[in-house]
Amino acid sequence: MALRTYAEYIESLKKMRPNICKFDDLITDVTTNPMTRNTVEGHAKTYKLLDDPAEREILTTVSHLTGEPISRYLSIIQKPEDMYANSRLKRRMFQHTGTCTGGRCVGWTALNSMFTTTWEMDQKLGTSYHKTFLYWLKDAQARDISIAGALTDAKGDRTKTPSMQDDPDLFLRIVERRADGIVVRGAKVMICGVAAANEIFILPGSGYKESDKDYAVSFVIPRDIENLTIVETRRPSDSRECEEGFDIPVKDGGITQAYLLFEDVFVPKERVFMAGEYEFALNAVKYFIAAYRAAIGGCVAGQGDVKIGAAILTARANGLSSRVFNDKITRMHINNETTFGIGIASAAMGKKHPSGSWICDMLLSNVNKVHVATLPYETSLLAQEIAGGIAETGCMPSYKDFKSQKYGGLLEKYMKAKHSAESRIRAARLVEWATIGAGVPGCMHGGGSPDGAKLMIRASENLEEKVQIAKKLAGITEDIPEPDGKR
Amino acid sequence: MALRTYAEYIESLKKMRPNICKFDDLITDVTTNPMTRNTVEGHAKTYKLLDDPAEREILTTVSHLTGEPISRYLSIIQKPEDMYANSRLKRRMFQHTGTCTGGRCVGWTALNSMFTTTWEMDQKLGTSYHKTFLYWLKDAQARDISIAGALTDAKGDRTKTPSMQDDPDLFLRIVERRADGIVVRGAKVMICGVAAANEIFILPGSGYKESDKDYAVSFVIPRDIENLTIVETRRPSDSRECEEGFDIPVKDGGITQAYLLFEDVFVPKERVFMAGEYEFALNAVKYFIAAYRAAIGGCVAGQGDVKIGAAILTARANGLSSRVFNDKITRMHINNETTFGIGIASAAMGKKHPSGSWICDMLLSNVNKVHVATLPYETSLLAQEIAGGIAETGCMPSYKDFKSQKYGGLLEKYMKAKHSAESRIRAARLVEWATIGAGVPGCMHGGGSPDGAKLMIRASENLEEKVQIAKKLAGITEDIPEPDGKR
Amino acid sequence: MALRTYAEYIESLKKMRPNICKFDDLITDVTTNPMTRNTVEGHAKTYKLLDDPAEREILTTVSHLTGEPISRYLSIIQKPEDMYANSRLKRRMFQHTGTCTGGRCVGWTALNSMFTTTWEMDQKLGTSYHKTFLYWLKDAQARDISIAGALTDAKGDRTKTPSMQDDPDLFLRIVERRADGIVVRGAKVMICGVAAANEIFILPGSGYKESDKDYAVSFVIPRDIENLTIVETRRPSDSRECEEGFDIPVKDGGITQAYLLFEDVFVPKERVFMAGEYEFALNAVKYFIAAYRAAIGGCVAGQGDVKIGAAILTARANGLSSRVFNDKITRMHINNETTFGIGIASAAMGKKHPSGSWICDMLLSNVNKVHVATLPYETSLLAQEIAGGIAETGCMPSYKDFKSQKYGGLLEKYMKAKHSAESRIRAARLVEWATIGAGVPGCMHGGGSPDGAKLMIRASENLEEKVQIAKKLAGITEDIPEPDGKR
Amino acid sequence: MALRTYAEYIESLKKMRPNICKFDDLITDVTTNPMTRNTVEGHAKTYKLLDDPAEREILTTVSHLTGEPISRYLSIIQKPEDMYANSRLKRRMFQHTGTCTGGRCVGWTALNSMFTTTWEMDQKLGTSYHKTFLYWLKDAQARDISIAGALTDAKGDRTKTPSMQDDPDLFLRIVERRADGIVVRGAKVMICGVAAANEIFILPGSGYKESDKDYAVSFVIPRDIENLTIVETRRPSDSRECEEGFDIPVKDGGITQAYLLFEDVFVPKERVFMAGEYEFALNAVKYFIAAYRAAIGGCVAGQGDVKIGAAILTARANGLSSRVFNDKITRMHINNETTFGIGIASAAMGKKHPSGSWICDMLLSNVNKVHVATLPYETSLLAQEIAGGIAETGCMPSYKDFKSQKYGGLLEKYMKAKHSAESRIRAARLVEWATIGAGVPGCMHGGGSPDGAKLMIRASENLEEKVQIAKKLAGITEDIPEPDGKR
Repeated sequence: MALRTYAEYIESLKKMRPNICKFDDLITDVTTNPMTRNTVEGHAKTYKLLDDPAEREILTTVSHLTGEPISRYLSIIQKPEDMYANSRLKRRMFQHTGTCTGGRCVGWTALNSMFTTTWEMDQKLGTSYHKTFLYWLKDAQARDISIAGALTDAKGDRTKTPSMQDDPDLFLRIVERRADGIVVRGAKVMICGVAAANEIFILPGSGYKESDKDYAVSFVIPRDIENLTIVETRRPSDSRECEEGFDIPVKDGGITQAYLLFEDVFVPKERVFMAGEYEFALNAVKYFIAAYRAAIGGCVAGQGDVKIGAAILTARANGLSSRVFNDKITRMHINNETTFGIGIASAAMGKKHPSGSWICDMLLSNVNKVHVATLPYETSLLAQEIAGGIAETGCMPSYKDFKSQKYGGLLEKYMKAKHSAESRIRAARLVEWATIGAGVPGCMHGGGSPDGAKLMIRASENLEEKVQIAKKLAGITEDIPEPDGKR
Repeated sequence: MALRTYAEYIESLKKMRPNICKFDDLITDVTTNPMTRNTVEGHAKTYKLLDDPAEREILTTVSHLTGEPISRYLSIIQKPEDMYANSRLKRRMFQHTGTCTGGRCVGWTALNSMFTTTWEMDQKLGTSYHKTFLYWLKDAQARDISIAGALTDAKGDRTKTPSMQDDPDLFLRIVERRADGIVVRGAKVMICGVAAANEIFILPGSGYKESDKDYAVSFVIPRDIENLTIVETRRPSDSRECEEGFDIPVKDGGITQAYLLFEDVFVPKERVFMAGEYEFALNAVKYFIAAYRAAIGGCVAGQGDVKIGAAILTARANGLSSRVFNDKITRMHINNETTFGIGIASAAMGKKHPSGSWICDMLLSNVNKVHVATLPYETSLLAQEIAGGIAETGCMPSYKDFKSQKYGGLLEKYMKAKHSAESRIRAARLVEWATIGAGVPGCMHGGGSPDGAKLMIRASENLEEKVQIAKKLAGITEDIPEPDGKR
Repeated sequence: MALRTYAEYIESLKKMRPNICKFDDLITDVTTNPMTRNTVEGHAKTYKLLDDPAEREILTTVSHLTGEPISRYLSIIQKPEDMYANSRLKRRMFQHTGTCTGGRCVGWTALNSMFTTTWEMDQKLGTSYHKTFLYWLKDAQARDISIAGALTDAKGDRTKTPSMQDDPDLFLRIVERRADGIVVRGAKVMICGVAAANEIFILPGSGYKESDKDYAVSFVIPRDIENLTIVETRRPSDSRECEEGFDIPVKDGGITQAYLLFEDVFVPKERVFMAGEYEFALNAVKYFIAAYRAAIGGCVAGQGDVKIGAAILTARANGLSSRVFNDKITRMHINNETTFGIGIASAAMGKKHPSGSWICDMLLSNVNKVHVATLPYETSLLAQEIAGGIAETGCMPSYKDFKSQKYGGLLEKYMKAKHSAESRIRAARLVEWATIGAGVPGCMHGGGSPDGAKLMIRASENLEEKVQIAKKLAGITEDIPEPDGKR
Repeated sequence: MALRTYAEYIESLKKMRPNICKFDDLITDVTTNPMTRNTVEGHAKTYKLLDDPAEREILTTVSHLTGEPISRYLSIIQKPEDMYANSRLKRRMFQHTGTCTGGRCVGWTALNSMFTTTWEMDQKLGTSYHKTFLYWLKDAQARDISIAGALTDAKGDRTKTPSMQDDPDLFLRIVERRADGIVVRGAKVMICGVAAANEIFILPGSGYKESDKDYAVSFVIPRDIENLTIVETRRPSDSRECEEGFDIPVKDGGITQAYLLFEDVFVPKERVFMAGEYEFALNAVKYFIAAYRAAIGGCVAGQGDVKIGAAILTARANGLSSRVFNDKITRMHINNETTFGIGIASAAMGKKHPSGSWICDMLLSNVNKVHVATLPYETSLLAQEIAGGIAETGCMPSYKDFKSQKYGGLLEKYMKAKHSAESRIRAARLVEWATIGAGVPGCMHGGGSPDGAKLMIRASENLEEKVQIAKKLAGITEDIPEPDGKR
């Protein structure tokens, strides 16, 4: 089977067992239910756009396993150029959908992490995880499926390790090991794009010690597997998606984040890539982070591109030239290119792994995470500043009011500026959506917190080397070690 | 009549003619309708808290007209200490309600502006506006009413003056002058707290030239006056206010912003304070700005206090000590005290006006506006950083899901951390509400844009004085004037 | 004796015993030696400007002890307006001299601190320090002397208290108590303006416990007292002050910072204001800080004014209009007014002390310290950006080269732009001097470090109050205390 | 001839005709004169370090012209990896010398620019500049010379083009064209590292129109060519380099910036690479900028590494652990890696030129220029904050005072903290030197101003594409063009 069409993708979702809920309702068809439809359409663009040769070049590559054309989302990253393509693809998809298509891209990063980690496990432990993994991957490429990725556990008391928690299920764990597979219990939370995914790739949420080995687990499952219940979370202004009209201006994109509740889910061994090998959990996370925190710079740059466009549209609709805002627009571009660029640099400075994968530079990836967690806020602020008070908090009458028989005409009269009231509202709603509405993707904590990234930067700092450089320059010969005490 | 009770205030709103709509529905009782109830309760606290002596001291003062105790919201600011009290009151009310009570405080600033402006008009033009104003004010103090304030016009094409617009109504204007009053047409937009107000105080939206004199108009009207239709705008996640549960965690506060549609509203001359005296319109705006942009520093500081508390609550619920976030918390405090402090400084550096009012310093007020438009964003970012991923975009299941018969128990199990799931959710929802939800007050463009403030700073800069200081210091004797050309 | 004239001030310095050194040379006349001349001339302006009625109003007030006109630098701050005048005076003097006149203003703050502290000591301990202090102060006012202030000790290992240090002299201490006074040993370091001072007012450098009581000492001494050696420190490009020409463009202002070496200096009891009362040392420091960190906002604003003027002068000399740099100039103004304004706010929010003094608000003063330690750097950066490459690091040929017989003419030809080469150089040198040269006053650590200020902010934060506000708003009833552990 | 040794390099400088002056003195031997010695030693490290294999790998590559090992400084950049090596080499040299070795690296960038530009000229115009260039380059590689680069003209009135200036010499120009070469007059100013260079590579300073074609000129000359006079400019605290001791703590590195005065210098045609082809001047500048603004991120990162090391050294000498400053140190690292990383990204996103050279991405290079102009200021601020008051402005007694027979012992006693007084002073002086002293390289305007970079970013922004993206997302079909008027 080759690359899927839009229709095949939609059909594949329709056929799945309904196990996604929101507002205490079971969503029977994710492709039509307003609470998931937009995100499905956003992800569907990764199939629909294949018809356009320029987009197809961005979206596809060749399988190193089979030599067949495959979706990039199912490819193994083997050289810097693969990572550049990753960053570009993510940026492009944000431009097309306005927001995150995590139901493909997180899975991509997760499977790349386990490509490398299973290779290492097999090398060190003599296991056959890598072979199992490749077997699954080849099949996944052939089926051209959409795969979400899941790391974050419920975590309970943040100061305690999994096994120290009052409730042992607060991190996803193996509760039974069987000859044909494992049974897992727990939850993965805030998981992106699950509603648009065919499968979900699970990674351990952290590094673990031996006492926590049942938590060192990685596998991939169909989204609609038995005993898995999925609850979609709220987002800003999410209920507008159930309304008619343009108060949510974007129809071809949307984001969802879910709680995955595992009530003793059985995973067959053909889909298990780690089951207790705690000493490899940290690497699985690190390989994920190295790629994820590099490429996410493309994501926020892509949304930044949308913010720029939306802000200027609103300004023009108000009658103002973009020239008035030159400095702000340049600053927005600088923010976009900074996160995009550091991601590229992380790839360029990466290293070839003996398994054949390409590992991005940890220092630069984590530097990027800090930028990704902060610069988009400034870009949002500037978009709101350019677009004015109606965009800042979306301070405009609702679509229903705009269409009111009684006073809709008056609203139209007074909302009109240089351009039509509707265009002005749509543009301002897009700014709102991307900066304080349902399109905000959670760039600060998504893929880990900036404080966590700073800890990793600290680990890569090589401070003593810098101290030696300075000592030599200053002509200091005395030994000046780190003192014991703190201030 | 003395200071009103909570019950009297609520009763006064219930008695008014319904003329407020949202979602194409007429709100028949603003005190119970979920779309306005929270803001009414927030404003009602300004009456309810009078029972507490400590709060009463903050909320009340003595009328300089009658010597009677009155609400500060109806007082004339006559000395720096009155402005300090203004800043403190606003900060306090944000702490009590989590957000804006613009249905009292903007009216306060507006009436203070017209106290001074009517005095000036009478001095220069021999009119009797000031007397008319004082007569109304004394009565308003006696009735202890809640007054919204309205400046912003629809404005149309931003590059054109009112009379240049294709539609002459895009700025509120006098369409008829009668012996007993004026008839006005147009709109005032994005007006805060109207649903909680008994009256609305109208100011001109800008300075005007003679060709635009019909737009130079100020008056005060009952909120439910004939031919006035009010449409409440959307806010982030506003429809949650119509839901059950704690997804909007705050019940004792809320914000509304309305479009006021004037379809030939008749205003009797006893309530008209400017009607064509275009040369005073700019001063009316300036006096408003001087006080408003000073005191709004207290507003965002008060909400900043809430953000700090909510962020720490969430962190503690996660099991984390506030000490972990010391630097971030200190930065949040610095932001709060900076806007609060510059507001105080603006008052301290103000000047006594011959009318008896106290005019804040324009330079410092406008400096504060720039801070108010930016620092709260950083405070919000830090609150989201401290509170984690569930707070950043409110990435948690809905209240309905949390109470689900099917899986509510599982959600509770996995949402629990150091403290109960419900407390954790409520705390995180409060962060969400104040930083990306319905509690965000629009501090950037509210009361004018930061770019507008920068223009006013530029007007106060006295650049040549600084050039002279530098010339003298550097021993330069040559004349070095501003060159003609630009780069 | 009344307010001194310029000539009397200069004469008073000439008459003093030479005990100031730099470059291992004894400075025999501080008023003419190039290494101290500029700072003396800067301080002398506080006398010279008395001839100008407008400046006199800024510089003088009335003694609350005698009712006589006195220098503000010798006055007790008794109300907010006194502090406003303090901020204004400091700003004004930076405008006149381009830099710090610490040889009057630090002493002023120090004597105000001890006015209050001695009153408290006498109240609690029955001592008579306050009387002694007032006796000296009245005399100092009559003599109209210039007084430097000194807090900072040598401090040795920063993790150890004074008595824990290997060398007990690393903090200034009492080595002998005699009936007629005390003998002190140690050093005060980085002390500003000593070369221009008649006397030096010593404060304890920190709060102390009983074990360190010999370090709790305050007194005032003639600058040329026996056994005191003063070594002036380097500053950026300081040796240019010994050169001819305009490479140091400012002649009427300069800064010096000295190491004061006390080799068993005897201080008569009439000049001793604390001698072992360790439990009052912290208050002495706090009262100093409260006033100092408020008013220093005026200092950096004044220098910011100079930076603005100098940057524009250079731009104009380059042929560029200041309009090109509007945004940068406005940002510079915002920085200036922010530090100035928070200082004013700290005064306005201060409290009357029972001794009669006015104590600024500690929270706002420390918030200001953080701004003072950072915003001037941005202002300097912007000045360098506006003024261009020749100003950034002063990248221009020396005065000697400019006057070279061989190629001076060529340099003049190529340095000329819109205005003469000399004006352009002088303007750029002024930017250099104020941003990276001898005029940089050390605003970051002067008067204490920003990290120290943050600790004090933390102490004033009242975090639990904010947590309670948030709990109430969010409807949380569960007790959520600070957890024990750290992350 | 192969790579030169340290001795050969030094010897080559000694042999040159003395034509460099400072303080109106002719420098007869740049290798020993204190005003140029440090920069010569810094540049000499590029030869001396060849003995270390690890450093040799960084410093050398293989000539694509001859296949011989050559200095990287004389190589043509042909692929991204060559640019990564460029960034790494520059960072490394800053670590070794503490500052800029512009006398090799600017020349490198200049010759790369003309490699490409001469190729283009020959293609379009049928000239033979490229052949001439390659001939010279091969020889230069064989001689392993050190080459400075010079772009910046005197420029006069910034609003006028060269031919509009009152004085036609304010931009370097051809005054005579001869069969065997050209004669040039004018000046190149603020040129780095000339004192350490064997030759100087001249580029046009800007793009030019036909009316300015005599200014479109590029060539390379021996530094000591007839009729060229070089005047070295001042730097902060530069005269300390003529003093004994450690007040300038760095001996193995230094920076110089010179004014080059061309009094009708004859350049033989074998060394001329552009002489009037005005339509190629802009490209010459652009190719320079693309590489220069990418790699300069490595420069400021390298100096940032030194600032980190120096700040920690000082803190430790004070007795403080680096842990106290973790957040600040991480921020410094983020700044370093950001400029380094964006430079890498610019290379990675570059394009192969048909001439064989690799052209960095203009957008990312100019984004980097903005970061390079600002982030190092924050890094400096943080270094000063960590290192304390003695480092902030170098507020310590001079070396002479420290060695004073009279009170040197006392200064040593009081300067000692956790470590020896001398180590503490050396460390603090290094912070001073790198942040406010003679080591500050002028990263803001060096290689062009940040405002110029912003103009280039604007030119690369592709704003309309972003507007189209937003329009499509928001479902807007109306045409919304840029309005004519400004606000």
